Amino acid sequence: MAEPDGVVPGVAELDHDRARRRGYPEAVYCEGKSPDQLRRIATALAARPGDAATIFTRADDVRAAAVLEVLPDARHEPDARLLAWPPGEPDPTGGLVVVVCAGTSDLPVAREAELTARYLGRRTELVVDVGVAGIHRVLARVETLRAADAVVVVAGMDGALPGVVAGLVSAPVVAVPTSVGYGAAFEGLAPLLTMLNACAPGVGVVNIDNGYGGGHLAAQIAAPRAGGRMG
Amino acid sequence: MAEPDGVVPGVAELDHDRARRRGYPEAVYCEGKSPDQLRRIATALAARPGDAATIFTRADDVRAAAVLEVLPDARHEPDARLLAWPPGEPDPTGGLVVVVCAGTSDLPVAREAELTARYLGRRTELVVDVGVAGIHRVLARVETLRAADAVVVVAGMDGALPGVVAGLVSAPVVAVPTSVGYGAAFEGLAPLLTMLNACAPGVGVVNIDNGYGGGHLAAQIAAPRAGGRMG
Amino acid sequence: MAEPDGVVPGVAELDHDRARRRGYPEAVYCEGKSPDQLRRIATALAARPGDAATIFTRADDVRAAAVLEVLPDARHEPDARLLAWPPGEPDPTGGLVVVVCAGTSDLPVAREAELTARYLGRRTELVVDVGVAGIHRVLARVETLRAADAVVVVAGMDGALPGVVAGLVSAPVVAVPTSVGYGAAFEGLAPLLTMLNACAPGVGVVNIDNGYGGGHLAAQIAAPRAGGRMG
Amino acid sequence: MAEPDGVVPGVAELDHDRARRRGYPEAVYCEGKSPDQLRRIATALAARPGDAATIFTRADDVRAAAVLEVLPDARHEPDARLLAWPPGEPDPTGGLVVVVCAGTSDLPVAREAELTARYLGRRTELVVDVGVAGIHRVLARVETLRAADAVVVVAGMDGALPGVVAGLVSAPVVAVPTSVGYGAAFEGLAPLLTMLNACAPGVGVVNIDNGYGGGHLAAQIAAPRAGGRMG
Amino acid sequence: MAEPDGVVPGVAELDHDRARRRGYPEAVYCEGKSPDQLRRIATALAARPGDAATIFTRADDVRAAAVLEVLPDARHEPDARLLAWPPGEPDPTGGLVVVVCAGTSDLPVAREAELTARYLGRRTELVVDVGVAGIHRVLARVETLRAADAVVVVAGMDGALPGVVAGLVSAPVVAVPTSVGYGAAFEGLAPLLTMLNACAPGVGVVNIDNGYGGGHLAAQIAAPRAGGRMG
Amino acid sequence: MAEPDGVVPGVAELDHDRARRRGYPEAVYCEGKSPDQLRRIATALAARPGDAATIFTRADDVRAAAVLEVLPDARHEPDARLLAWPPGEPDPTGGLVVVVCAGTSDLPVAREAELTARYLGRRTELVVDVGVAGIHRVLARVETLRAADAVVVVAGMDGALPGVVAGLVSAPVVAVPTSVGYGAAFEGLAPLLTMLNACAPGVGVVNIDNGYGGGHLAAQIAAPRAGGRMG
Amino acid sequence: MAEPDGVVPGVAELDHDRARRRGYPEAVYCEGKSPDQLRRIATALAARPGDAATIFTRADDVRAAAVLEVLPDARHEPDARLLAWPPGEPDPTGGLVVVVCAGTSDLPVAREAELTARYLGRRTELVVDVGVAGIHRVLARVETLRAADAVVVVAGMDGALPGVVAGLVSAPVVAVPTSVGYGAAFEGLAPLLTMLNACAPGVGVVNIDNGYGGGHLAAQIAAPRAGGRMG
Amino acid sequence: MAEPDGVVPGVAELDHDRARRRGYPEAVYCEGKSPDQLRRIATALAARPGDAATIFTRADDVRAAAVLEVLPDARHEPDARLLAWPPGEPDPTGGLVVVVCAGTSDLPVAREAELTARYLGRRTELVVDVGVAGIHRVLARVETLRAADAVVVVAGMDGALPGVVAGLVSAPVVAVPTSVGYGAAFEGLAPLLTMLNACAPGVGVVNIDNGYGGGHLAAQIAAPRAGGRMG
Repeated sequence: MAEPDGVVPGVAELDHDRARRRGYPEAVYCEGKSPDQLRRIATALAARPGDAATIFTRADDVRAAAVLEVLPDARHEPDARLLAWPPGEPDPTGGLVVVVCAGTSDLPVAREAELTARYLGRRTELVVDVGVAGIHRVLARVETLRAADAVVVVAGMDGALPGVVAGLVSAPVVAVPTSVGYGAAFEGLAPLLTMLNACAPGVGVVNIDNGYGGGHLAAQIAAPRAGGRMG
Repeated sequence: MAEPDGVVPGVAELDHDRARRRGYPEAVYCEGKSPDQLRRIATALAARPGDAATIFTRADDVRAAAVLEVLPDARHEPDARLLAWPPGEPDPTGGLVVVVCAGTSDLPVAREAELTARYLGRRTELVVDVGVAGIHRVLARVETLRAADAVVVVAGMDGALPGVVAGLVSAPVVAVPTSVGYGAAFEGLAPLLTMLNACAPGVGVVNIDNGYGGGHLAAQIAAPRAGGRMG
Repeated sequence: MAEPDGVVPGVAELDHDRARRRGYPEAVYCEGKSPDQLRRIATALAARPGDAATIFTRADDVRAAAVLEVLPDARHEPDARLLAWPPGEPDPTGGLVVVVCAGTSDLPVAREAELTARYLGRRTELVVDVGVAGIHRVLARVETLRAADAVVVVAGMDGALPGVVAGLVSAPVVAVPTSVGYGAAFEGLAPLLTMLNACAPGVGVVNIDNGYGGGHLAAQIAAPRAGGRMG
Repeated sequence: MAEPDGVVPGVAELDHDRARRRGYPEAVYCEGKSPDQLRRIATALAARPGDAATIFTRADDVRAAAVLEVLPDARHEPDARLLAWPPGEPDPTGGLVVVVCAGTSDLPVAREAELTARYLGRRTELVVDVGVAGIHRVLARVETLRAADAVVVVAGMDGALPGVVAGLVSAPVVAVPTSVGYGAAFEGLAPLLTMLNACAPGVGVVNIDNGYGGGHLAAQIAAPRAGGRMG
Repeated sequence: MAEPDGVVPGVAELDHDRARRRGYPEAVYCEGKSPDQLRRIATALAARPGDAATIFTRADDVRAAAVLEVLPDARHEPDARLLAWPPGEPDPTGGLVVVVCAGTSDLPVAREAELTARYLGRRTELVVDVGVAGIHRVLARVETLRAADAVVVVAGMDGALPGVVAGLVSAPVVAVPTSVGYGAAFEGLAPLLTMLNACAPGVGVVNIDNGYGGGHLAAQIAAPRAGGRMG
Repeated sequence: MAEPDGVVPGVAELDHDRARRRGYPEAVYCEGKSPDQLRRIATALAARPGDAATIFTRADDVRAAAVLEVLPDARHEPDARLLAWPPGEPDPTGGLVVVVCAGTSDLPVAREAELTARYLGRRTELVVDVGVAGIHRVLARVETLRAADAVVVVAGMDGALPGVVAGLVSAPVVAVPTSVGYGAAFEGLAPLLTMLNACAPGVGVVNIDNGYGGGHLAAQIAAPRAGGRMG
Repeated sequence: MAEPDGVVPGVAELDHDRARRRGYPEAVYCEGKSPDQLRRIATALAARPGDAATIFTRADDVRAAAVLEVLPDARHEPDARLLAWPPGEPDPTGGLVVVVCAGTSDLPVAREAELTARYLGRRTELVVDVGVAGIHRVLARVETLRAADAVVVVAGMDGALPGVVAGLVSAPVVAVPTSVGYGAAFEGLAPLLTMLNACAPGVGVVNIDNGYGGGHLAAQIAAPRAGGRMG
Repeated sequence: MAEPDGVVPGVAELDHDRARRRGYPEAVYCEGKSPDQLRRIATALAARPGDAATIFTRADDVRAAAVLEVLPDARHEPDARLLAWPPGEPDPTGGLVVVVCAGTSDLPVAREAELTARYLGRRTELVVDVGVAGIHRVLARVETLRAADAVVVVAGMDGALPGVVAGLVSAPVVAVPTSVGYGAAFEGLAPLLTMLNACAPGVGVVNIDNGYGGGHLAAQIAAPRAGGRMG
């Protein structure tokens, strides 16, 4: 293969340097890529042994099948629409990432966040179905929440949970709005605005349904620090 | 005066029949009316003794002065931008309306709601500064909240409070979003959407900064019922 | 089953305490839940006899089938996308809830509101096809409307009906916008805004197409009151 | 003056041909024009005797003064922010234009519509303060409304009135939304959408607060027709 | 059939009085109605001979088939998604309605407008593919445009055509925005706003893709007038 | 064929004069046109030999097949949803157009832009997968970018690339936002706004996903100029 | 002064390298900068003789006075809110930029565009008051428009002019929407969308009221080219 | 004073417990509070010695004067609209917070972020005027950026800088959009969306112009950790 390492001609230029530059591996966003393009990207990855796991996000069944055709031993988590290759998770370092999921319908995004944080090297814990409509459910988990070095809160509808959680803990809260809800949620706009307007400081917001982004940011926040951040 | 009773020629047609038809007096919305128009409306009211109090809402200093010029004994509550004439509150009947105010900046709207409910004949109680960022402040008031027959919750920014309150009480919650907040609150759009998407059922939403509407709806909900609603 | 009562591990934490806390049973929002998750939730319900009926909302054919597989005697109202188990409606208490439906296309949402109010224990009456374009149709129903302790008005397109109804009755009006209409209705945004801006006070608005929320709020408003609200 | 007739060098090119081409004189939109530019436009008009009246719209006090400086005999209607020169109204021809104003705060826009229709040669009638919150007020005017060849309905807040009126008459309804209302009216967006979504056919909508446009369209609709439209 | 004339129990209340009250027959909006509901409405119509034609709008193939099952002799124009029963058009009276279509993709909406105007009793003419990108195409049709008593202009994308046409004719222009266009047309929002902001007065705007509403309003504008409008 | 040259009766009026008037051939926008309409347009084209290539844009598989049925030798580029007939590209004149594609998912739009520029007579170069998240990738291409007479930058998500490129080159940048991205990209709204707000001057923005428009504008910018533009 | 050349400590880092890197001088955007900051920036400029003129944009009276205090010989064009120092315009090279202004109220933005193009070294011509409502005014200027190497079209309200102009010329059109118009123009959103959706290809859009950006892009398009773009 | 500690009757309930509960002191948001309310809050603070500094944010001149009247030794930073009392900054612990400011007009927000981080106990560094239009300015600061434990990036207009910075560092980036920019920035909406859609992971977004929130979140991220987060 005459192309420079990591270049898939006419398709993508993999950023192998990224792990060294930023400390984290790149992910392949599958939505909008054709199965054929994904097969070519997977092939380029397979030709390059020794790297940390690459994550494939937003992979529906057809796209996941294309990746698995080339990388049959990849780990596939259909509910989170995520694949990872090589499949092994790294040994955890740094702090704990707690992922909180407001409702059952938000689970796919929450799981994507949790798996992302794990593949970036953090310990994680998942707390499900603790919406603010029953505030006692949140309060019952305060101990777990306060053990976290970073909390990811995934919520649709009113998106009120991150602000409530941020008022209970000292760790930063990463808020992930989802597109779950009735019409006036406007595909996630409502919880997005709620989270941006959270009364409690300490909430950083990422894109709608972007579990990958939420897990990544939380993993960075909870990364090990010894002397310098990268130490 | 040759005009039919309650008509201010070329300006307004007062709805004297309203108290009989709906059980509640009309209010005069001052915004957008000129001081001169308000003086003429006040004069028409003064010519008609014996009615229940009429409320003037959204009256800035200039408009309030115009009303007071004609009706010097009117009650004026500048912080709520409200006047009432005749000034006396009716004897309370029906249930209790509790007005909850998330932050100090929401107070003018909360006060407008409270006074409206009183002039429509309800007992009221005002609870201030209990935002969700410190959820313990809300929980400390649960007893008061549960005593209410209708709760009005006034909140800007993330507007998360009505949903939390609705999860704690069995009475209906009237949610009033305010235009208080940073840029992404978009003049009240953010809390409005939050309230419409409240996870807990039992929340009815009114217009942004519309304390009058919130207090009116709550007064209707808490109205006395004996046999039939109007009994 | 070692799990605490009502917990479906990794899926949902049923809020059995809710009936006691708020006086109303919880509902299961089916949209966004997988058929398998719904089967597990239904199984947890089936294991817990003696409760009031649980409502399943927004259940399309596939999800309804999943629930019926586990709870074959559940009541299923396909047009309202609703199931209830146990199927029996409670004996009605409190006042009358009148549900008004502006157009035939709004019927599914109106029916969801009506059934919800019934399962929460209210008598209901349904009035169909009375849009403001033929105002005489509304006026012909005034007697029915004035008999209500709470009126639910379901309307798409211009959403003008709740404001007109509120001007005719003394009971509170719960307005439910629907996503029915031409392009500039923007999936329910237009009637939502109309209802929030209703000239007549006494209108509380819930989410777009949220018949469940509308019926619930109306049932709370019309709940029996003897001495205190919960009496 | 060497410039071609009607050209104000570097400022405006008056469309003298318009009356002949379209049958209606041009108007000067004052907002955004400097007093000096308006003086120069007025001077160009003054130099050209014999034309039908030109209307100046959206003229605040400063801009009106600039026009009056050059054309002291112009008619000035401050409440409608409108001037006309020469001041005389044409003899009316064609049908009747009825202008309906939902609330007192909408009067400036309604007056602009009425005066525009008159200067375009129609008879007009103005009906004030007939919002849908008291539907009996509208019904009391049905006879007047049915006498119209074109009805202009001016309304802010929920903007529901045009749809109700259109359901009562056979003449076309021109709907003019205004920026009057609480926050969720979003400066006229709410009534604009309501009017576009009116359930009753026969409603044509113009821009927010555009009384001039509403009056102009109504005058065209009610124009005399003998054989052909222009006859 | 014990029901009052025109009532389809639990589905619709046909407005037989409408022709007498407004001078125009009612239309049945098919979107959102089930095939079964349409069959029942068609059956009610069939039971009532002697009326003017009823129009069924927004009827996709499935819904059209349901209507045709009951009313096999109905006229069906699939491209306009419209049916009419009885099929015969009335003899034309009043003026001429010219329907102008900016692009080929706007044809379905333009045809719906044209057929509506015909069934309401007007002569019509259809002009296709005259977008402003080739302004000479518009100018070549000026004679036809000036012959109209009402012009309907149907356009998507930039929606600029109605303003250009309004500047060329003295008759009122009814503007119908369509959802045709690239992403930033936002499903018709862009042409809608353009039309509302048309520089030339004389443009009344109806809902996005609402050919029925556009044709109806134009038919009203071009209706015969002798003495009074309804004469 | 009795119709004037280029007219497809009732469907389209081809603008043969366009090449002479503007210097560029017309394109056929296929979205919203039926396969039958496209066959008729293709037939009209086939009847008129000797022209420059006509481009068919936004042609999905069904529509492409309709065109190919009539013009079997047309060039079809499925990934760009584009056809051209006659298939031959013109000999290039003028300057170089460089098309930059931020991510793999943006490739279809970028390819449409590139092919359009070629069929309008420019040399092109395509640079892929150079998003701002790895700024070194952009910098590595500066030499290519600076060789361009016009740069087309195609990007979704944050749409930040055009502003960065404009800061590096002296040639004009044509920015094409795409609908690629997570929820808060709102179908291309986010990158559209970013591009309009680019800090670096020299960026002209076209419609979302409008590769045709981007390539066309770039081809005009890079057109040969000798003396006058049209020389 | 120990700071590196062009650095205003704690305020700005002037980009002296820009002329060399991009071929154009930097501009100072005054809005949001304090008078004191502008004085410090002006002082830094004054200390650096021999450069091409720097443009100060969006300078209201207070900010312009601050600049003139330090650079009293700067050219100040108040209507365009622009200053230039040194005041001399460069000798024109390259092609002709024609700036077209739809209405008088758009003049400030049009003048900003024209002056910017001049200070970047182009010949310019300004055409005023040629809105599409009188299409003959546009057609009367076709010769001038066709002489341009780049056309800047400045328009508010419906923003239809750029699309019409683009259909008449072969040169690229730079479209500048303005915030001029009635309420539904939404501060420039309406003309912005119109321009992005222009039916005629060849239109590149810049930010609302951004005359500077429009003039800059046009100057780049009309820049001299001999062999290579920068030659 | 009989009131419980920290309660300002009818105004605010200070959250003294907050430092213990979350590890950070509360701030007083001044916007929307009256000078009198602020004086009462300041008085309550003054009565409670020994606490960490309280920050007053969004204090315009009038509100700042009210606070200084009661707390004359408070530190006042007018450009950041911030006061702190007691004035002393705590001794820094934890990591370094670097605040990056895209343009001079964004400085007030950037300064608010920096001061907030300092009063929460972090070392800070401020980097100004490094917008993406001159990407070399950003690259010249990479060393500083990489030394940070948290980076706050403040930007208006296109808001592209946070995504570029996140691609260069491994520390989390807190993005603060500002309301600086031309019309299509829509008061900060454009940079807000850009930041939420940043291609590079690792960006958490806060509210528009919310320098306080940005500095607070960064301070939490860079907080000292020894064993557990709170250790």
